[in-house]
Amino acid sequence: MNKNIKITTLNKSWTTESGHTFPKVDIAWKSWGTLNENRDNVILICHALTGHAAADEWFSGLFNEGGILDPENQFILCINIPGSCYGSTGPTSINPKTNKPWQADFPALTIRDFVSFQQLLLDELGIQSIELVIGGSLGGMTALEFAIIDDRVKAAALFAMGKAHSPWAIGISEAQRLAIYADENWNEGFYDSNSPPTKGLSAARAMAMITYRTPDNYTQKFGREVHPKKDLYQVESYLNYQGKKLGGRFDANSYIILTKAMDSHDVSRGRGSFEEVLENLHKPVLVVGFESDLLYPLNEQQELAELIPNSRLAELKSPYGHDAFLIEFDQLNTQLHSFYHSLTEVKP
Amino acid sequence: MNKNIKITTLNKSWTTESGHTFPKVDIAWKSWGTLNENRDNVILICHALTGHAAADEWFSGLFNEGGILDPENQFILCINIPGSCYGSTGPTSINPKTNKPWQADFPALTIRDFVSFQQLLLDELGIQSIELVIGGSLGGMTALEFAIIDDRVKAAALFAMGKAHSPWAIGISEAQRLAIYADENWNEGFYDSNSPPTKGLSAARAMAMITYRTPDNYTQKFGREVHPKKDLYQVESYLNYQGKKLGGRFDANSYIILTKAMDSHDVSRGRGSFEEVLENLHKPVLVVGFESDLLYPLNEQQELAELIPNSRLAELKSPYGHDAFLIEFDQLNTQLHSFYHSLTEVKP
Repeated sequence: MNKNIKITTLNKSWTTESGHTFPKVDIAWKSWGTLNENRDNVILICHALTGHAAADEWFSGLFNEGGILDPENQFILCINIPGSCYGSTGPTSINPKTNKPWQADFPALTIRDFVSFQQLLLDELGIQSIELVIGGSLGGMTALEFAIIDDRVKAAALFAMGKAHSPWAIGISEAQRLAIYADENWNEGFYDSNSPPTKGLSAARAMAMITYRTPDNYTQKFGREVHPKKDLYQVESYLNYQGKKLGGRFDANSYIILTKAMDSHDVSRGRGSFEEVLENLHKPVLVVGFESDLLYPLNEQQELAELIPNSRLAELKSPYGHDAFLIEFDQLNTQLHSFYHSLTEVKP
Repeated sequence: MNKNIKITTLNKSWTTESGHTFPKVDIAWKSWGTLNENRDNVILICHALTGHAAADEWFSGLFNEGGILDPENQFILCINIPGSCYGSTGPTSINPKTNKPWQADFPALTIRDFVSFQQLLLDELGIQSIELVIGGSLGGMTALEFAIIDDRVKAAALFAMGKAHSPWAIGISEAQRLAIYADENWNEGFYDSNSPPTKGLSAARAMAMITYRTPDNYTQKFGREVHPKKDLYQVESYLNYQGKKLGGRFDANSYIILTKAMDSHDVSRGRGSFEEVLENLHKPVLVVGFESDLLYPLNEQQELAELIPNSRLAELKSPYGHDAFLIEFDQLNTQLHSFYHSLTEVKP
């Protein structure tokens, strides 16, 4: 990892919801712009499942001219979640008890753990107020929990997710995990780092890639063409390539831990009903859904917007399904600008 | 296998589209009712991916009172497709050259091969005319090819498929195959029959089961409940169970061969355009689609009905997605009765 990502080791203990205490943590993060004197000009970006702190790469369209993000005036921050393999404490980190990587012994995490972990760095930086927390998919789940948990957060923009991980999405996650568990190199998660379970992880990624798009999009993109140099349809060649690409860059234990954390997503857990939890969220919340999203369908965003009192819902059209939140930057910027302006305008 | 399935060994050669010639074949089949003197009172049922010749089990609702199928007057026939593992020649059959099971050496098949194989038995039985060929999913693809290829077929009823396997459906197949290829026991398809790649096949099945339903159906069926005796959500427990169940009853090489045959489905291949091929299909064709089918969406059935001149389209509502063609028997019987009546009524 380069990407100008900083890794800060904090000698602060961090306890997960599952009850494990890390005496110190590594936190990978990237920022743009300068923290003002009041330490309150913060925009916090939450990344998705296989993402990392370099948000300018995968959210590039929000950083470009016309985007919501403005390093001239804002301190923009993105923190790598724990359990990932991009610099923050995760299953590839060293377990101090064994002096070996944690691997499958890494404790189970939840979306709320992603918040408590990031709060360590926010506290370290002395951040007093967060104008807006933004995220899509897993990042949206994290952003929603941030808005519920952290009083510093003043507003949230949530893309392409819902109030809880649906059984549909849990099932899709589990089918992917089963492919990893089947891998000849899996070894119950204690695999040789030189021979990781890349085939199973690639199969999982191929499955995931499908759920991120739509039938029509695949027809437009691939048709029934066969790859000229391979005995494969273009779509097979593409999924094989995408699978191998993730298999080469991501850790299988991270994939398991983070997808299980997504499955834990449920803002009502231990807090009462969804209605009670969300009607007490009085902050302004922008909820963006895409009509073609098959993984977190539009009714999930509609429900969220209905339950959050000070919300606005944007139902957007896109041919890109769930992936639209990483592609439709013009539409997202339009929504974000309007929402952000409504937050900062002087009330009469 | 019991289920009153007959296995007929025919000393007739059969050549696949890929150019392999089998000097003789085993054909598993089941029939209900009696073939009349003219040998023309035939209803042919085509089974789906993991199906078998015992259609009274998986199409039970069509056999019940009020169903279209009538063994009092019809000779109803269902033939196990080649490449399967339920009695017909397939990868678990003995390769005469090696005296071992074919396994991954079994030749590639196409939907058209499923037709030419079944024709061997139709010829053997001396069948002169087929009133109606019926099938859904892979079975619908086979039924459509039957209607195109075989002059004996007088009409077809096609459920939940389209004119060709879409890149979406091919991608879903390939992701499932990748899970099998990742299995520790796969061994390029030459696995020990006592240690088959059941984990990979189970992962593939779990993925498939998801694509057969819908988000709403999973929410209704499972919610976010956790299985009382396992540390799994109900949906995970269900998919694990379904995966293992198929892993225990089906052959992984069969799964590969049959899903690839589905990917080959394209009525235009080598015959001109879809328009040319289908406008020359003058037989009555009932096309049934389900609004909630995410695997073969309704637009595929709409397109098929548009291109086939003597077609009627039924767009049905169901919460069950693609699986509806194996569940919504009341609706299917209504459509089939009306269609069948239109075929047999005396023209003025």
